[in-house]
Amino acid sequence: MSHNTFGHLFRFTTWGESHGPALGCVVDGTPPGISIDAAEIQHWLDRRKPGQSRFVTQRREPDTVEILSGMFQGKTTGTPISLMIRNEDQRSKDYGRIADQFRPGHADYTYWAKYQGIRDYRGGGRSSARETAARVAAGAVARKVLNHLVPGGIEIKGALVQMGHLKIDRHAWDWAEVENNPFWSPDAATAVVWEEFLDGIRKSGSSTGAVIEVVARNVPVGLGAPLYGKLDADLAAAMMSINAVKGVEIGAGFDSATLTGEDNADEMRMKDGKVSFLSNKAGGILGGISTGQDVVVRFAVKPTSSINTPRKGVTTTGEDVDVVTTGRHDPCVGIRAVPVGEAMMAIVLADHLLRHRGQIG
Amino acid sequence: MSHNTFGHLFRFTTWGESHGPALGCVVDGTPPGISIDAAEIQHWLDRRKPGQSRFVTQRREPDTVEILSGMFQGKTTGTPISLMIRNEDQRSKDYGRIADQFRPGHADYTYWAKYQGIRDYRGGGRSSARETAARVAAGAVARKVLNHLVPGGIEIKGALVQMGHLKIDRHAWDWAEVENNPFWSPDAATAVVWEEFLDGIRKSGSSTGAVIEVVARNVPVGLGAPLYGKLDADLAAAMMSINAVKGVEIGAGFDSATLTGEDNADEMRMKDGKVSFLSNKAGGILGGISTGQDVVVRFAVKPTSSINTPRKGVTTTGEDVDVVTTGRHDPCVGIRAVPVGEAMMAIVLADHLLRHRGQIG
Amino acid sequence: MSHNTFGHLFRFTTWGESHGPALGCVVDGTPPGISIDAAEIQHWLDRRKPGQSRFVTQRREPDTVEILSGMFQGKTTGTPISLMIRNEDQRSKDYGRIADQFRPGHADYTYWAKYQGIRDYRGGGRSSARETAARVAAGAVARKVLNHLVPGGIEIKGALVQMGHLKIDRHAWDWAEVENNPFWSPDAATAVVWEEFLDGIRKSGSSTGAVIEVVARNVPVGLGAPLYGKLDADLAAAMMSINAVKGVEIGAGFDSATLTGEDNADEMRMKDGKVSFLSNKAGGILGGISTGQDVVVRFAVKPTSSINTPRKGVTTTGEDVDVVTTGRHDPCVGIRAVPVGEAMMAIVLADHLLRHRGQIG
Amino acid sequence: MSHNTFGHLFRFTTWGESHGPALGCVVDGTPPGISIDAAEIQHWLDRRKPGQSRFVTQRREPDTVEILSGMFQGKTTGTPISLMIRNEDQRSKDYGRIADQFRPGHADYTYWAKYQGIRDYRGGGRSSARETAARVAAGAVARKVLNHLVPGGIEIKGALVQMGHLKIDRHAWDWAEVENNPFWSPDAATAVVWEEFLDGIRKSGSSTGAVIEVVARNVPVGLGAPLYGKLDADLAAAMMSINAVKGVEIGAGFDSATLTGEDNADEMRMKDGKVSFLSNKAGGILGGISTGQDVVVRFAVKPTSSINTPRKGVTTTGEDVDVVTTGRHDPCVGIRAVPVGEAMMAIVLADHLLRHRGQIG
Repeated sequence: MSHNTFGHLFRFTTWGESHGPALGCVVDGTPPGISIDAAEIQHWLDRRKPGQSRFVTQRREPDTVEILSGMFQGKTTGTPISLMIRNEDQRSKDYGRIADQFRPGHADYTYWAKYQGIRDYRGGGRSSARETAARVAAGAVARKVLNHLVPGGIEIKGALVQMGHLKIDRHAWDWAEVENNPFWSPDAATAVVWEEFLDGIRKSGSSTGAVIEVVARNVPVGLGAPLYGKLDADLAAAMMSINAVKGVEIGAGFDSATLTGEDNADEMRMKDGKVSFLSNKAGGILGGISTGQDVVVRFAVKPTSSINTPRKGVTTTGEDVDVVTTGRHDPCVGIRAVPVGEAMMAIVLADHLLRHRGQIG
Repeated sequence: MSHNTFGHLFRFTTWGESHGPALGCVVDGTPPGISIDAAEIQHWLDRRKPGQSRFVTQRREPDTVEILSGMFQGKTTGTPISLMIRNEDQRSKDYGRIADQFRPGHADYTYWAKYQGIRDYRGGGRSSARETAARVAAGAVARKVLNHLVPGGIEIKGALVQMGHLKIDRHAWDWAEVENNPFWSPDAATAVVWEEFLDGIRKSGSSTGAVIEVVARNVPVGLGAPLYGKLDADLAAAMMSINAVKGVEIGAGFDSATLTGEDNADEMRMKDGKVSFLSNKAGGILGGISTGQDVVVRFAVKPTSSINTPRKGVTTTGEDVDVVTTGRHDPCVGIRAVPVGEAMMAIVLADHLLRHRGQIG
Repeated sequence: MSHNTFGHLFRFTTWGESHGPALGCVVDGTPPGISIDAAEIQHWLDRRKPGQSRFVTQRREPDTVEILSGMFQGKTTGTPISLMIRNEDQRSKDYGRIADQFRPGHADYTYWAKYQGIRDYRGGGRSSARETAARVAAGAVARKVLNHLVPGGIEIKGALVQMGHLKIDRHAWDWAEVENNPFWSPDAATAVVWEEFLDGIRKSGSSTGAVIEVVARNVPVGLGAPLYGKLDADLAAAMMSINAVKGVEIGAGFDSATLTGEDNADEMRMKDGKVSFLSNKAGGILGGISTGQDVVVRFAVKPTSSINTPRKGVTTTGEDVDVVTTGRHDPCVGIRAVPVGEAMMAIVLADHLLRHRGQIG
Repeated sequence: MSHNTFGHLFRFTTWGESHGPALGCVVDGTPPGISIDAAEIQHWLDRRKPGQSRFVTQRREPDTVEILSGMFQGKTTGTPISLMIRNEDQRSKDYGRIADQFRPGHADYTYWAKYQGIRDYRGGGRSSARETAARVAAGAVARKVLNHLVPGGIEIKGALVQMGHLKIDRHAWDWAEVENNPFWSPDAATAVVWEEFLDGIRKSGSSTGAVIEVVARNVPVGLGAPLYGKLDADLAAAMMSINAVKGVEIGAGFDSATLTGEDNADEMRMKDGKVSFLSNKAGGILGGISTGQDVVVRFAVKPTSSINTPRKGVTTTGEDVDVVTTGRHDPCVGIRAVPVGEAMMAIVLADHLLRHRGQIG
């Protein structure tokens, strides 16, 4: 969890810029003997790729993954898996203005200031959301690890639960619905409302924020470790590291501030010889360790700052300027963050599964 | 950020249980030549210690810190600083029931399950909030590092901004007020309301959650690193690792989900030859890197699960049981989390300051 | 393996200076449920402590270990084990000269230069060999972990195999002998020769170097990982980190440079249904991974630079000076390095055992 | 320094197998603004590549490096530099026997045992010395970092100082000579002797070991850190992680065991206002910290186990077998280890330079 590497025993390192020749990751620590083929990784990448509806950027990237190492005869060998995705949609265009301007809400100024004036400004360079493709690829490997090691597998699903002020009706939650609309909404009715709302946003050249919820089922009890290796602390870092994320919560999250101890603590009863919880305010984590209930994480994604309205910015030479963004952008980048959140959940759980096995057996 | 160690260049490792002979931490990576005495560390510990008002636990712990290494003639030598706090209020009592019961909302069950039935159940053992004393001690060292390295120093302040449903009036924010009431409220009027509210909670043997806000001023632009060393990702892990925290947000946080791109992106103008932001929705961080504005973090603390009402739990031998907690507890543990949040902010910034200096100079 | 922390899953952090109030370590990552008492740790510390013969420093330190955390009812809980050893033999003396002088062969100058003139010069401060007591204490915990996890246990023994130019007769190797002489010599005859040799060194106020060999038996095949987590790479770092060590080799070591491929490669035959090696030039490690044979490490310890002959040094203010060391010193510090080498072997193996279990199961 | 990653602030991760589509590395932590082009990296790779004399393997690999990320307009941006080298000489051949046999002296058995029977046996897979090409590429970046940050640059040179029993005459040392013979010998006369010796080895289908010395000049005083971040401990790990290395020593190394304190400690005198050492037994490191003298590391490389004489091995199914290796191999793999040792020296120094700057400034 430093530089461009995430994780301890199961870890990955990403590299690449938006408009360079390629981007990718090295996934290290995978147990041997797990069957993976490129098509399985591609499956998850395809869910994230742009251009799948009018509500996401129309930039065309096939995002085809190549496996360069770490596999032999279709199985993991336990050595590093190098995954590469070539950048293909690198339209030649004049980057002149973007090179000299700091766009409000973007990382232009901070990269420029940190790296002493050196930055790849083309498409956001390293700060581009294209980097999340590498996360999704690594997440696909992590899912395989989880399903290989945990009897019955660990199911990880994400959904959009809020767009702008519009929240889903949680009583109408149906996981099957998330595949039926372009928003990953688990509530069909809200998806219809969002469609109209987002068309308005899109046509006006504006953008909106969103909240994503990711749930992991069948997580074994005992993952996570006190005190700086808490499962929730690692999940918080994982989700906050995704582009544009500004908040993370577990279970009842910020609502837990409003609860009393009576309402918040999940009571327990024995059921079929096992500990059973009567509610899940904890989001499946107590004391930083998984309870065996669903692990529930929610994160907020800010609206993209690439909008059509002129905004006040400054130039690299210290001049005030009005910045206008043109081109292909997401009216709600939160939509494409759903598969990324799922991937990060898979990665954190795979790492903790191996770490737990290392210390405890 | 694994096991019981946090940080990279500036890092600390904590140890100790609630009812063992002592607890403490080893702070490593401190630059040499910084004057620190035990009284300075004690100053911050005293702000956290119990028994300072009727609204926090009446457990009496002087929490006196001893410096065992890493200092010479009053200055840091650059070698590990070992800090120890003896546990003194270890009332002999019958732990029989707590030894055999899993209390709802506590980490009893998860520790027991993870560590194969071995756990120090006295006072929560390792999961006790007493561990946060070690964080505050380490944070005191971090503050010294920040003030040593950054011209003008970095000022870090925390406040309680919500208790139960009761939020402060942000227009009435006055930092001077946080020292004038037992809640660290920056709004005098709300402190009065909270007093009545919390007396009710306390007398009924219940508890309530809270939200804390921590602000760092004069943070240099450029701290943080893409992509898994983002400043906000490390802050999220830091705050989520504090006992009872269930959510973390930066700047506008979850509210950013409701904003449009126009409202969210902080516009810029040159002012006195420097980049100046017209708002701070970003909470001082863009692309994982500090902007030079105030770094603003908020986190939610759940209500303690130690309440007087009987709650459904189970025993280690698989029996249903009604759990009643008696004894000295905090009606709002969020109050004592304020100095802890400040400490974690200081630690994250100190680590990032050294990491930035290492890579960039 | 950075700063003052060593290891990944099983890791320890040491702290303390020669003449501070105490020194110690925090051992983290220990599996739960292992019975350890202070007497077992003390057993290994006693083997290292000074004053046991006329051939080691007469400084009197009882080196009594206290367990401050991580144990409950006599068993490890899986949380950090804090071990502390108080410094008791802190004779008040005039440190005036040593404060201002850089002694040749010591770390005085490098510490002073690195840490900008701040250093605890009393007894070498942090660079004192007293720090190795903390390693031995951590190593005692590591031995317990190994014996807990590996059926039959892992036996780790060290011996002095060379003092000055005088090497043992390897054909006379008898492990039982190492306990019968003050040098840990496995060869009784050589011990007699060394006794005379070292008396001469000691009486002349000089010192001599030595070579130590540490052997681990019953190490499971498969520990270690390509390529920067190789078992031999970690052993090399572990041994080289011990004070005064200038060389490390595995198996045939530097002699392998003189061999042909025919003589070097250990041939294999099946024996009782298992792979059996016909020799052990590899020292139990191939490709960075343990073969199941004895793991054999050797390291060279330089002679202490604290000798009675005046030596050319310089002062902190840039004056030439003749340095004379007086007081209690080891004529052959290699002797006391034997238990330290054993401890580091145990620590590296414990870490790799957990890491292997994490990735592979 | 775990898995396939080496280093802390300046770190690299390697991936790839001998006969996969490509191999490479991700170099992270590079300061921004350093001019590097592919030709500079290629320069160092060309020194390592096979087929340059009759004394190294005749396998033909152009080892052409591609820079995939981390550079913009010819300069480092501070983000990860992904370097890839395609494998081109993948002759189709029957791997049948090698798939089923454990060759003595190779990592066949240990990989098979560790990774539960899954291994890429083609050309040694991950354990192939081809991986060292990635180290040399990373080392090329490290050299640029050192020369960018240290006034006057840090010069790193390697030489073969022993082949079989034949050592160079150190009095005849001439760095200019290392480029004039196929062995990197600094002594022209010994090169002639080695030529005859190695021709004999080569023609008989045998192999020989060697010792390499790597020297770094103009290293600033103060690099390295107590106690598990010692410069020599990291160098030991770095060199021992190179394929076939069995021993590492610093300065006088194992010879220091034979010295007295009088002979071993490097005396000091002031010269031109600076501390000057009268000898360099320490190899430029005291207490784990650089002294400002040349940093001198030596490491022993065993003879390759790929020889023409049949050797006793076993099969994966537990049968005894006589193994005969045919094909293109190095009679003295130590020769090609010289550029690799230089690269690892550069990498360790770059990491420590950034770490020192981080903590101290």
